[in-house]
Amino acid sequence: MSEGSLAIVCGSGALALEAAAVARAGGREVYLIGLAGSATRDIEAYPHVWLRLGEFGRLFSTLKQWGVAEVAMLGAVSRPDFSDLKLDWGALKRVGEIVGLLGRGDDALLVGFAGMIEQEGFRVVGVADFAPGLLAPAGMIVGRAPGPETQAEIAFGSQMLNALSPFDVGQGAVIAGRRVIAVEAAEGTDAMLSRVAELRSSGRVRLKGKAGIFIKAAKRGQDMRLDLPAVGPGTIAAAARAELRGLALAAGQILIAEREKFVAAADAAGLFVFGWPT
Amino acid sequence: MSEGSLAIVCGSGALALEAAAVARAGGREVYLIGLAGSATRDIEAYPHVWLRLGEFGRLFSTLKQWGVAEVAMLGAVSRPDFSDLKLDWGALKRVGEIVGLLGRGDDALLVGFAGMIEQEGFRVVGVADFAPGLLAPAGMIVGRAPGPETQAEIAFGSQMLNALSPFDVGQGAVIAGRRVIAVEAAEGTDAMLSRVAELRSSGRVRLKGKAGIFIKAAKRGQDMRLDLPAVGPGTIAAAARAELRGLALAAGQILIAEREKFVAAADAAGLFVFGWPT
Repeated sequence: MSEGSLAIVCGSGALALEAAAVARAGGREVYLIGLAGSATRDIEAYPHVWLRLGEFGRLFSTLKQWGVAEVAMLGAVSRPDFSDLKLDWGALKRVGEIVGLLGRGDDALLVGFAGMIEQEGFRVVGVADFAPGLLAPAGMIVGRAPGPETQAEIAFGSQMLNALSPFDVGQGAVIAGRRVIAVEAAEGTDAMLSRVAELRSSGRVRLKGKAGIFIKAAKRGQDMRLDLPAVGPGTIAAAARAELRGLALAAGQILIAEREKFVAAADAAGLFVFGWPT
Repeated sequence: MSEGSLAIVCGSGALALEAAAVARAGGREVYLIGLAGSATRDIEAYPHVWLRLGEFGRLFSTLKQWGVAEVAMLGAVSRPDFSDLKLDWGALKRVGEIVGLLGRGDDALLVGFAGMIEQEGFRVVGVADFAPGLLAPAGMIVGRAPGPETQAEIAFGSQMLNALSPFDVGQGAVIAGRRVIAVEAAEGTDAMLSRVAELRSSGRVRLKGKAGIFIKAAKRGQDMRLDLPAVGPGTIAAAARAELRGLALAAGQILIAEREKFVAAADAAGLFVFGWPT
């Protein structure tokens, strides 16, 4: 179990702050590292520093100064190009490693970054360690239990995501019956759901009324401390525009941001949200 | 080998007519069936009939009247909804089968349709049987032989397409290094390539200069007589907008429409086209 003081590296989105609040409510001292250009000024409600990507020297010296033993990373960060990095002296000794990572998939990039943090003597922890309540639970989250048709869609979709898993590609898809309507890659969940809405409104994909599900999982073998897939109220809005019947989230693998708004929005849109046991 | 007279069921696009011309040049009698709303009036240069989807009775009586032994299907058809079908008396005895097929993936729909044609005593043939020159050959089609970087992208992409294959989902992707930028499903190749262009121009996907490849294959286990994936000059234009380095087509599995224009466009855009041996 996690304990003692905790630092959270904050990208964009509400989740880093929600996780910080949970950790603080649990009695931990929480320090935040805001990534410039990604995190919001809300992080300033905590002891914090602002860093630019590439300031590895300042990152490690700050963590040591705070005396934290554990570090978490939450929220989205635009994938950096080498020229975006503000490398400091502490980064220079790792420049070969950094350049090597930038050519890899997002997962490999984060795993490499986590490895660099651990080499400095910190423990990298995940939401499951210190704020498990932010993860999708197993079972119904919103709405009624899925019938056989939906169960079949979930089984088919989860098999497909499993097959894609080794390729470090976004683990989301829209399934209607046994048809794969869309597969998520670099465009992200919201863009994929918008595409489904367009395919339907243009008549290119023809489904009657509310049809199909959005299914999402972490990649198999993904380091569960890092960059878990997340959904939130925006996901519900996008799924409603795509006229889906609901969302199937891999239990324990998907973060739900702004849970109250998320549940209220799904309820209002008549979408089910189900945490499928993996 | 194919011989005797041949009927081609024509959807949209140039390929049905190109295939008809090849078959006729090879000395075969060629009859065309234009699917209303999909085929163009160019089919009228051949002995032909126009049919609407669902006119199974007229289809079979026409084929018998022409005395053809072999039937091919080429070109795209908008996926029909049950209410779009103009079922005739010949269709009514198959209505259960038709309704069952409409809930399936595109492949299953076509395989079912081919099965119905064969049950009537016709042989369903593919382009490989009567116009193999329309398929992508193995080796360089346009440009220079791929270097090690491109070979690695092709290997990675082909493994991913292979993993997706059992799920009856469009077998195309954009790969850059070991990153999957986009996976094609119901939106089709051109929309997927447009998405990549947008992801790059918006900065969401950042690649330097010309980067990445479009890779395309037929699905494993796909009936190679039916609905082979196709590329054409429009594919080149879309790949150029996405600033890719080239196209990798599974040899013998991909139709190339308007070959001369296709090659000239790739050449002008500086894109390689490579037929990878499967």
